[in-house]
Amino acid sequence: MVSERMKQSIERGKPMAALFTAKDRLVSRFGPDDVYDFSIGNPNVPAPATVKESIIKQAKELTELELHSYTPVEGYPFVRKAIAEHDREKFGVDLTEKNILMTAGAAGGLNAVMMTLLDEGDEVIVLKPFFGEYAVYVEHAGGELVVVPTEEGTFRIDVKEVERAITRRTKAVLINTPNNPTGVIYSEDELRALADMLYKKSNDLGIDIALVSDEPYRDLAYGGQDVPYLPKLYDNTIIVYSFSKSLSLPGERIGYITVSDSMTERDVVKAGLATAIRSLFVNAPSLIQRVVCDCIDDECDVAYYKRNGETLYEELTKIGYECVKPEGAFYLWVKALVDDDFEFAKMAEDHHIAILPGSAFSGPGYFRLSFCVAYETITGSIPHFKELYDDVCGK
Amino acid sequence: MVSERMKQSIERGKPMAALFTAKDRLVSRFGPDDVYDFSIGNPNVPAPATVKESIIKQAKELTELELHSYTPVEGYPFVRKAIAEHDREKFGVDLTEKNILMTAGAAGGLNAVMMTLLDEGDEVIVLKPFFGEYAVYVEHAGGELVVVPTEEGTFRIDVKEVERAITRRTKAVLINTPNNPTGVIYSEDELRALADMLYKKSNDLGIDIALVSDEPYRDLAYGGQDVPYLPKLYDNTIIVYSFSKSLSLPGERIGYITVSDSMTERDVVKAGLATAIRSLFVNAPSLIQRVVCDCIDDECDVAYYKRNGETLYEELTKIGYECVKPEGAFYLWVKALVDDDFEFAKMAEDHHIAILPGSAFSGPGYFRLSFCVAYETITGSIPHFKELYDDVCGK
Repeated sequence: MVSERMKQSIERGKPMAALFTAKDRLVSRFGPDDVYDFSIGNPNVPAPATVKESIIKQAKELTELELHSYTPVEGYPFVRKAIAEHDREKFGVDLTEKNILMTAGAAGGLNAVMMTLLDEGDEVIVLKPFFGEYAVYVEHAGGELVVVPTEEGTFRIDVKEVERAITRRTKAVLINTPNNPTGVIYSEDELRALADMLYKKSNDLGIDIALVSDEPYRDLAYGGQDVPYLPKLYDNTIIVYSFSKSLSLPGERIGYITVSDSMTERDVVKAGLATAIRSLFVNAPSLIQRVVCDCIDDECDVAYYKRNGETLYEELTKIGYECVKPEGAFYLWVKALVDDDFEFAKMAEDHHIAILPGSAFSGPGYFRLSFCVAYETITGSIPHFKELYDDVCGK
Repeated sequence: MVSERMKQSIERGKPMAALFTAKDRLVSRFGPDDVYDFSIGNPNVPAPATVKESIIKQAKELTELELHSYTPVEGYPFVRKAIAEHDREKFGVDLTEKNILMTAGAAGGLNAVMMTLLDEGDEVIVLKPFFGEYAVYVEHAGGELVVVPTEEGTFRIDVKEVERAITRRTKAVLINTPNNPTGVIYSEDELRALADMLYKKSNDLGIDIALVSDEPYRDLAYGGQDVPYLPKLYDNTIIVYSFSKSLSLPGERIGYITVSDSMTERDVVKAGLATAIRSLFVNAPSLIQRVVCDCIDDECDVAYYKRNGETLYEELTKIGYECVKPEGAFYLWVKALVDDDFEFAKMAEDHHIAILPGSAFSGPGYFRLSFCVAYETITGSIPHFKELYDDVCGK
């Protein structure tokens, strides 16, 4: 009954699916109070209070038809306008509602982007390690994923490696900053070097290469630095954003795509995105569009994540773990203590800790810790991480 | 920049895209008060009051994390349980939460079903006329659409025609009852005849054929008859449902898939659907899952649509139009007065009326009227329909 292709997807998806069961496994082994789950990136910091206020206000003031009717495919114009104005002010660029399309989260946006750009066999370059679902979005749109390494140990963009991977079939370079799983924020310098190379290669090969930037963690930056605004550096940029993290609304499926005016075939790109949004039905839900519009200037308690990340980084490096200091997002990317990261994940479970093996991100030999957890989970886990370290490396 | 495939989709989608502009075109020609828009199926009957009450109650009583966190891929277990219990009682079948997967509307569900069932080149049979987006869902999953005629004039299932279209590559027959655009509800007898033929052909060819039933209009039935519950007639049935119409929540993207226990490879089908839901990110939004759970026994004012449909049918047939008496959904399927239905749509616009040409549903020579409009739009439009008729056919 089920297609061969889907059977393969089910198999390939098992490491991701296992994400959702690791905690249950540990709880049944050790009870609910001595388990440290760092596996899933499900925000633990609540949405700001303004979200609830907005929901209640909208429900009280508007009619049912205003609240729940189909919205235009691209989203409500007034919501897109508010977002454009917010980003225009924040980034100092020219934007109107015509540059914004609302989507069902960043994943809905990325699916729509890939459907818009890719013909069968077109190539999309991603930098490893990367969020595993990118492969699904690209293949689902008929494209081929080309995986390029980042700089050893720092996970920064290796522009030469990206350049080497570009062919006449390259349609897009897909980056993610702040990065899941490494926590790296690409600097303006490295993005400029990437952009310059892309301009040169596009010109040399006579092709258009899109730079697709997946930025659900844009507002989770801890070093005081902003995440560089890519359309300033490269014309053919498409930004995919989500409110899942900044407003802690992952269950509500709400985000947006930005296409700047300088994009090649701008109007066809936007028509393609609208067509994809309609046919995938990754429209943004109606009520929550109004809510993010009300809350566009708000954010969840990002400082909570900052403290979590700093504590976890300091304590783990003190023990002896090697990891990248997280600049953004809510992940710590740590070198596994044995070569086989799946094996290491099992060893961690024996010590009450749920982690995600780096192989799930094409980063074998590492593991990812999601630090969107209670601070007590961080502090409580440290003795267990210590025991795990001692167990493997000796005291 | 944009793929050739998407450029073709944009072209093909133009009749659908035109849906969203017909009313604006007429308003700019004739002013806002003398325009009769029957083009779009956007429910005009408000959601029941319990929806708003539920939203406010949930927002007041639950924490932000309870309201807005990622839900399980298949949806909240308690929501799926409430739906299973509701349908179990209503249809007298054995269902639990394990048979139910929440999705972003019926369209999200259909996309997930096609991704689960289809390998490249697999065939899906649809009965014309049909909702045009079916072609997108099928092709998007790599399948091929096989279009089969219904019975001339009555638009009932022609089981012999369906049988003739079945090959070894047939993976699914996709039906829609109550039907968009014809308003027909397939009877238990004709569905049983279809099911018996499918059993026989599956057996003869040694293949599994799924019967996928798209039922967003299930609760909009006007003749007093229920919409037959297909899993009772055919084991390999997948039902795709949406709350868009029954609760008037089209903007909120909420529906569900039912897979019955008797389905071949049931557990793999469900794993495939969950994988598709995750990778397409057609998850049902979180808050609205709780809301439909609260409102599972409620419905919008279906009697309003019934009166609209009856009035429109009676008045148009009195004038001389030939149409199918709508048994369900909120569409009237009418024979165009000239052969070219696109040409006829233009003529209707000259008479202040926005319609949808039947060709958008692979039903040339007909047109569709959505009667989910104010009753005053129905009554106000009649003189215009009369003038249009007289204009074309003479007094």
